[in-house]
Amino acid sequence: MSMSMSPEILLVGTGAVGSFYSGKLQQAGARVSALCRSDYEIVKKSGIAVKSVWGDFHFMPELVVNRIEDYKQKPDYIIVSTKVLPGIKPASIIAPAVAPGTSIFMLQNGIGVEDPVAAAFPKNEIISGLAFICVSRTSYGRVEHQDYGRLVIGRYPSGPSEKAGILEALFKKSGVPCEHDASVATARWKKLIWNAPFNPMSVLGAGADTMEMMGNPASRHLAKKVMEEVALLAGRLGHEITEAFIQKILDDTAVMKPYKTSMLLDFENKRPMEVEAILGRPLAIAKDLGISLPYMESLYGLLTIINERFIPNR
Amino acid sequence: MSMSMSPEILLVGTGAVGSFYSGKLQQAGARVSALCRSDYEIVKKSGIAVKSVWGDFHFMPELVVNRIEDYKQKPDYIIVSTKVLPGIKPASIIAPAVAPGTSIFMLQNGIGVEDPVAAAFPKNEIISGLAFICVSRTSYGRVEHQDYGRLVIGRYPSGPSEKAGILEALFKKSGVPCEHDASVATARWKKLIWNAPFNPMSVLGAGADTMEMMGNPASRHLAKKVMEEVALLAGRLGHEITEAFIQKILDDTAVMKPYKTSMLLDFENKRPMEVEAILGRPLAIAKDLGISLPYMESLYGLLTIINERFIPNR
Repeated sequence: MSMSMSPEILLVGTGAVGSFYSGKLQQAGARVSALCRSDYEIVKKSGIAVKSVWGDFHFMPELVVNRIEDYKQKPDYIIVSTKVLPGIKPASIIAPAVAPGTSIFMLQNGIGVEDPVAAAFPKNEIISGLAFICVSRTSYGRVEHQDYGRLVIGRYPSGPSEKAGILEALFKKSGVPCEHDASVATARWKKLIWNAPFNPMSVLGAGADTMEMMGNPASRHLAKKVMEEVALLAGRLGHEITEAFIQKILDDTAVMKPYKTSMLLDFENKRPMEVEAILGRPLAIAKDLGISLPYMESLYGLLTIINERFIPNR
Repeated sequence: MSMSMSPEILLVGTGAVGSFYSGKLQQAGARVSALCRSDYEIVKKSGIAVKSVWGDFHFMPELVVNRIEDYKQKPDYIIVSTKVLPGIKPASIIAPAVAPGTSIFMLQNGIGVEDPVAAAFPKNEIISGLAFICVSRTSYGRVEHQDYGRLVIGRYPSGPSEKAGILEALFKKSGVPCEHDASVATARWKKLIWNAPFNPMSVLGAGADTMEMMGNPASRHLAKKVMEEVALLAGRLGHEITEAFIQKILDDTAVMKPYKTSMLLDFENKRPMEVEAILGRPLAIAKDLGISLPYMESLYGLLTIINERFIPNR
C-alpha cells in the first residue's frame, strides 16, 4: 500500500478549490506537483498560503511547472480544477501528462465537465468530485477558506472505484469530510440544485448575499422555480431529486450565515463567470430533450450579457 | 376658446418627464403651476432648466408650492407624473386640488396607474399619457432631453375626449409629436412590450445598454419571451398585440443608438426603481387570471432583491 498512501499527483488549476484540496492530500502523504500559469513565479518561489477555518497551512508542491511537458512523472492522479470556461479545454491541457494508469479527478463545478475528458481518454478512469466549500483565492499564492469543506467523490458516471477509495482515505486522514458516492453524477445534479439559482441570483441581484436572496417572496419564488427546473431535467436523465430535497435546501439556505457565492466573487473581480457549466450546458441538454426551462433561460440570458464583457474573444 | 388654449394646469411630480412636457405646455400658452417636494427651494427660485435636443428652454412655473393646500386655483388639468412606487399615492396627494371640472392627466410609466385615481375621483375625467422619450433629471432644477419625445394621450380607459384634444393641440403647437388615441389603454400595453424586457434587463445586465441587450442570442431570446408574455396577458384583457408588432420592436431596438434606460438611471443613482409598475402589477393581474409568466417572474424576483435596498421602509 505504499503507492496507495503516497500516490503521485499532478494538480492542474491552482485556484482556490484545487489548491485547498491538493494541499490536504499532501498533508496526508501524497506527492503533489502543480501546473501553474499566471501564478507560476509566485507559487514556485513561495507555494500557496492557505488561511483556513480548519487551521492555516502551507502548500508547497513537490514540483511546480509552467509547461506540462516539464512534468516527467507518470501520475497516479491528475486533479483537474481549472475554471469551467469556453476557452479552457482540460483534455488538451492534460494530454501530455496522462499515463496508462492515470486516474483523472475532475474537481470542478457544473454539469458535463467530465464528458470531454472521458471522450479523450476512454481507457483512463474518471473520478468526479464535488466540493461543498466557501473558499477563494485572494491573490496569487493566497487562498482563504471561509466555511464548509465537504467533498463527494466517485467514479464517473457511476460504479465502484478502488482509486476513489484511496482518495477518500487520504482526505479523511487530513480531516476533510469525504463521502465516496457510487452515483456521483446524481450528486452533481443535486449540487446544481443550489448553484443554479443562487450563483446567478447573487450576481444579478447586484451583489446579493444568501440572506437577501431568501429575503422576499418574489426572489424566493424564483429560486424555488429554478430548483424545480433542475430537478425536472435531472429526473429526465435518471437522477431523481425530490420536492423534499428542494425544500430542505431552501430551508437550509434561509438560515445559513449570509455569504457571497463564487460567481459573485468572479463578477466583482471582473473574471469570467462559470455560466456555461451552471446554466448553459443544462439548458443545452434540455433543448435536446425538447424541454423548456424559462426561469433558467432568464438567468442565462442576463448573465450572458455580463459575461460577454469578460470573455471578449469569443 | 380662451380657456382652451390657456388652461390652468397643476403639475404634480417635477421629475424629468413631468417637467419637460409641462414646460412645453407653458410654451404653448398654458398657465402651469407646480407642486414640488425635495426640489422646492431650487425650483421656486430658479425654475427648471431644460437641455433638449429640440432646443434648450427654461420652465418657470406660474406658482411653485410645496404644500398642495397652498395652491388655490381650480385647475382644468392636474398632471400626475410622480414616480410609480409603493409609497407614493397620487390620489391622496392631489385630492385637495381636484375640482369638479378637473381632468386628471396620468403621465406615468406602467400598467394600472390610472385605476386608483379613477376610483378616488369617479366624476372626473382621467386622461392617460405615454411618453416615448429619453429624458432625465440630472439634478434638482435641471433636466436633460436626449432623444425621442412622442406622446400618446387619450381618455382612460377609452373613448373620445374634448380635453385630451386640447392637450393634443397645445403639445403640437409647442412642437411635441402627439397622437390622440381613443384606445390609450391598448397603447399602454404596447409600450410595456418595450419596457418590460429592456428596463429590467438593463439593470440586471449590470448596466447594459440596448446594443448589449440585443448583442447575444441568449439575451435576445429572453427579451422576445418577455414581450410574448406581455402580449399574451394584454390579449387576455382585450388588447391585441401581434407577433409582427413584437418583431418590429425587436428590430428597431437592435439598430437604435445604444442608450441607458430610465430604470438603469434610477439604479445607478440608488433611487427606487419602478418595478411594480412595469412588472409587479402585470404579474398580479396574470396571477388573478391564473396565467404563469415565468420570464417576467424571473426579472421581477431579481429586481425585487435590489429594490429592497432602495425602499427600506416597506
